[in-house]
Amino acid sequence: MSAPSGLSDAMIEATCTTNVPKPTNNLTNPLLTDLYQITMAYAYWKTGQHLRPAHFELFFRKNPFGGSYTLFAGLDEVLKFLAHFRFTEEDIHFLRNTPQLGHCEPAFFDDYLSNLDCSDVVVHAMKEGSMAFPRVPLLTVTAPLGIGNLIETTLLTLVNYPSLVATNACRMVVAARGQFWEETAGCSPPLKESKVSSSPPRSSGFRGTPRKSVQMAEGGMTDIRRRKPKCVEFGLRRAQGPDGGFSASKYSYLGGFHATSNVLAGKLLDMPIAGTHAHSFVQSYTSLDLVKDARLKRAAKVGEEAGDEMVVLLPIVLKYRQQLDYNETNDGELAAFVGYAVSFPNSFLCLIDTYDTLQSGLRNFILVSLALNDLGYTPRGIRLDSGDLSYLSLECEYLFHEMAERMDRGFFYGLDIVASNDINENVLNSLNKQGHAITMFGIGTNLVTCQAQPALGCVYKLVEVDGQPRIKLSNDMEKVLIPGRKIAYRLFGEAGWPLLDFLVCRNETQMPSVGERVLCRHPFIEQKRVAVVPARVVKLHNLVFDGKNGVVSGLPSVEQTRQFVNDQINYTRADLLRYINPGEYKVSVSDETFRFLHQLWQKETPVPELR
Amino acid sequence: MSAPSGLSDAMIEATCTTNVPKPTNNLTNPLLTDLYQITMAYAYWKTGQHLRPAHFELFFRKNPFGGSYTLFAGLDEVLKFLAHFRFTEEDIHFLRNTPQLGHCEPAFFDDYLSNLDCSDVVVHAMKEGSMAFPRVPLLTVTAPLGIGNLIETTLLTLVNYPSLVATNACRMVVAARGQFWEETAGCSPPLKESKVSSSPPRSSGFRGTPRKSVQMAEGGMTDIRRRKPKCVEFGLRRAQGPDGGFSASKYSYLGGFHATSNVLAGKLLDMPIAGTHAHSFVQSYTSLDLVKDARLKRAAKVGEEAGDEMVVLLPIVLKYRQQLDYNETNDGELAAFVGYAVSFPNSFLCLIDTYDTLQSGLRNFILVSLALNDLGYTPRGIRLDSGDLSYLSLECEYLFHEMAERMDRGFFYGLDIVASNDINENVLNSLNKQGHAITMFGIGTNLVTCQAQPALGCVYKLVEVDGQPRIKLSNDMEKVLIPGRKIAYRLFGEAGWPLLDFLVCRNETQMPSVGERVLCRHPFIEQKRVAVVPARVVKLHNLVFDGKNGVVSGLPSVEQTRQFVNDQINYTRADLLRYINPGEYKVSVSDETFRFLHQLWQKETPVPELR
Repeated sequence: MSAPSGLSDAMIEATCTTNVPKPTNNLTNPLLTDLYQITMAYAYWKTGQHLRPAHFELFFRKNPFGGSYTLFAGLDEVLKFLAHFRFTEEDIHFLRNTPQLGHCEPAFFDDYLSNLDCSDVVVHAMKEGSMAFPRVPLLTVTAPLGIGNLIETTLLTLVNYPSLVATNACRMVVAARGQFWEETAGCSPPLKESKVSSSPPRSSGFRGTPRKSVQMAEGGMTDIRRRKPKCVEFGLRRAQGPDGGFSASKYSYLGGFHATSNVLAGKLLDMPIAGTHAHSFVQSYTSLDLVKDARLKRAAKVGEEAGDEMVVLLPIVLKYRQQLDYNETNDGELAAFVGYAVSFPNSFLCLIDTYDTLQSGLRNFILVSLALNDLGYTPRGIRLDSGDLSYLSLECEYLFHEMAERMDRGFFYGLDIVASNDINENVLNSLNKQGHAITMFGIGTNLVTCQAQPALGCVYKLVEVDGQPRIKLSNDMEKVLIPGRKIAYRLFGEAGWPLLDFLVCRNETQMPSVGERVLCRHPFIEQKRVAVVPARVVKLHNLVFDGKNGVVSGLPSVEQTRQFVNDQINYTRADLLRYINPGEYKVSVSDETFRFLHQLWQKETPVPELR
Repeated sequence: MSAPSGLSDAMIEATCTTNVPKPTNNLTNPLLTDLYQITMAYAYWKTGQHLRPAHFELFFRKNPFGGSYTLFAGLDEVLKFLAHFRFTEEDIHFLRNTPQLGHCEPAFFDDYLSNLDCSDVVVHAMKEGSMAFPRVPLLTVTAPLGIGNLIETTLLTLVNYPSLVATNACRMVVAARGQFWEETAGCSPPLKESKVSSSPPRSSGFRGTPRKSVQMAEGGMTDIRRRKPKCVEFGLRRAQGPDGGFSASKYSYLGGFHATSNVLAGKLLDMPIAGTHAHSFVQSYTSLDLVKDARLKRAAKVGEEAGDEMVVLLPIVLKYRQQLDYNETNDGELAAFVGYAVSFPNSFLCLIDTYDTLQSGLRNFILVSLALNDLGYTPRGIRLDSGDLSYLSLECEYLFHEMAERMDRGFFYGLDIVASNDINENVLNSLNKQGHAITMFGIGTNLVTCQAQPALGCVYKLVEVDGQPRIKLSNDMEKVLIPGRKIAYRLFGEAGWPLLDFLVCRNETQMPSVGERVLCRHPFIEQKRVAVVPARVVKLHNLVFDGKNGVVSGLPSVEQTRQFVNDQINYTRADLLRYINPGEYKVSVSDETFRFLHQLWQKETPVPELR
């Protein structure tokens, strides 16, 4: 089967690799499918239809999270699955003995299923990480009817969640950057780290007046330079199963996250991992006695070796406790921080809300930080996991800045303030409004489970058999299929932004080209039309799998895809990124496709009778 | 390490097995964890704390879905994980080269991690499938601090989603049974299949008057005997990754579902699988020519062999088309149904909404059904995947009953009406109110992603170190920990229902016993108390894993657990199963535990200063 005409056939000649790794998850195999794919395969085989040439499109009908775009992800696992598609003898044995299939002719198993692989399957797809829009195929499958159907469910499973979580992550990264808030506050990103001005924003120091602290924070906003907050994925424990967690780590990184807490993702994907300690760590230290002998070396200065002398940390800490009059802080917590400091002196970051954030945790962190810094180390920061994150982060920042001046320690200006605890897109936007000093968000449940919308409704539809376009009707207009095998283009304007996506049936004579006026029509609504003279035309699908030759090589790394996502977001109209009432990106069809669709629709729709 | 005193030590003597299968998912291994578990382990090891005896509890704080109960699930995979817990050389190599751990002493990797397994871990757990309530541990871990912490994230990942989806499934099964609706309608379940009375409920036959059809359906309800609808899981394609799908199949079955579409679940778990065909199957048949020669044998009669004569089906179908004047139905659809009938004559069930449900699909099904029945087969039914499921199901049932009488075919009374398309608990309750004739619900997205609440917030907390109870405070009362190692009981009343759960610190002298009055206190609110004289006392946790001896044998099969779930639901107070404003099940502590908790709470809470 050759590539669809008009698509870049030349790519078939690119180096192909048959040395594709197996799917990451051992559950990803041909039986990971719905039974109806097998029963249909039998009916096709039994009635001699299984080899008819067919064409399928995998797409979604609506962007998730009330947004205006979706990131396409999961392609690499799709290719691994296709490259290794084979029923094992054990699989065949199981199917043969399944009650529903018990009566099937033996030849179905012996001749057909046992010998089936994806050598007759050709897949074209968008580049992984592409911004995608409703009804534009993420990938297309050209294959005989039998095998083309058999892979449906698994392909959907492998694309739906990765695309959803990548999109969710990207939206959160955009929200965390708070670009709209920064704009209205008069700061232009990117902000660089620098010493604070003489009048830092601060709250009143009293938990009862958050309103005041918010106003002050907003008022002072132009005076303070803050780093753009980064996002880190913390969701493994709340994910929907082990690979819900693993995929979340991978695809949230692709969507712009900075790191994950998931060690396995670090190992298998070579991506950054992050983590320090939990509440249980703090609780487990019951007294200062447990760390009275804890020692560490002085840090090496630039150009020098670290000395061999082991210094006991606790006495220095207690000296500062005396000096600052922080005698009421929790001893167990202080012990835990000392224990953590001697273990991770170069990356000392403490969770400070186990007992009381401001009265105990923050102060204990300051004490140990000062002692660590005496030995030449630069502490890294704190994590807040409960309470009013706006208020607490500003309070922490204020005390850090005060300490910086009072104790003359510059490191206090560079500390990270990490915030976690049920962060979602809405909380991020709200924190931006209230003002905060958070430099990093740890996001778990809402990211990995995509709480705001836990499923992307990708579908996989037959659009052509034997070269004949097929339609599926529905009373719900959104569910009507645009029939036929289509070529998808993205048309760009002179300013470099994408203007709209444009679908053309492959047998049409006229394809869009640069500088030529083209009529773009809404697929369903007759009155919605727009004429476009594109400054650039990009064909959206490339050949990625050619069954005869295997996977077409040159798939980008996660890192490269992450960069591609970032580049696209930076070149996206601001209204499409808006949280409330985002603008809509147009997906249109050619005039010829429009006419053909409506003609077929009319023909296949019976006229109901009212009696 | 021995089992906690008071818990059934005798069970340790039960046969133990070290021959435990590996975790089902290859991603379930010791690196499937948060990095902070490793950094904490290093800090414990570095400060000499890693071997201190500790006790952890895994529990949740709030029932999901606004409900009153949660089903505990995932235990079997937890045990497999623990039994095989070992870092590989490759894992150690990776960790050693992780930037955050680069400075760690080599002995941490070589002496500690490389030799670490779960031989010092003891786990007690509720029986899998138990109804569980907030703050009562699902399982407890007694282990040295280091390893006890290292397994936290993975245990949470393995319990959170299975428990969530089992609970979701159970709620849907309860809703689908529609017990409240049946009660108010004056029918008492279980209803058995029987021939309909002479005045079946029906709608007006006109799509424009659903209101009328609803009223008629409700009015006629006492006249018709319907089967309790069953639920089938269809969610693989929308699941959060391959094992999100696999786990959903397994745990929704455990929660009371009848079958799954997921073939792999059928193979690996020996559970029922179901499925027929999709819209694409119907679309792919373009004309009647494709099945003009499709044949099948006559069905064998009881006591006879099937004949060898192959009968062509289409002419019989066309004869009925003529007779019933169904000439306007879609030819392609009719061809598809004929193709499916010759392939699955014993389980003929058709999706009827590809073109038009009532004008085409339903009629085509009837035509092929009559022909199949002529050859001695009993057709199975139809599936609706769009539109007004209440109205359409009643219309279909009405026509089936009409056909049964007009054509004198009894099989029309026994047909299944399967409904799918975005079914959730709310839709089920609403369908019960409106009236419907659905016998089986196919539930996908909302079940497997748990759309109504996609994460259960299980936590894993350190409650004791070195025999000392530990507390974690929080401004949010719900998040305060009940400190210390506790024994959990379920107290039953004389009527056989559970009255409440009761937690007692293990070192207390008085445990609850049958016939003795015991004071049960709300853990946090002083005024909430109740005195109970239990008729039965059940200890909730049993030893399930003893590191020295492996997994304690005798874990129930999925089938047995499913039965256990069903038995519990049948013995649950009706108000706890209510959809809106369900009753609350009490979780209480002993008077001694209450006093101890509040004493420790007071002691560890610093008094904030207002200046």
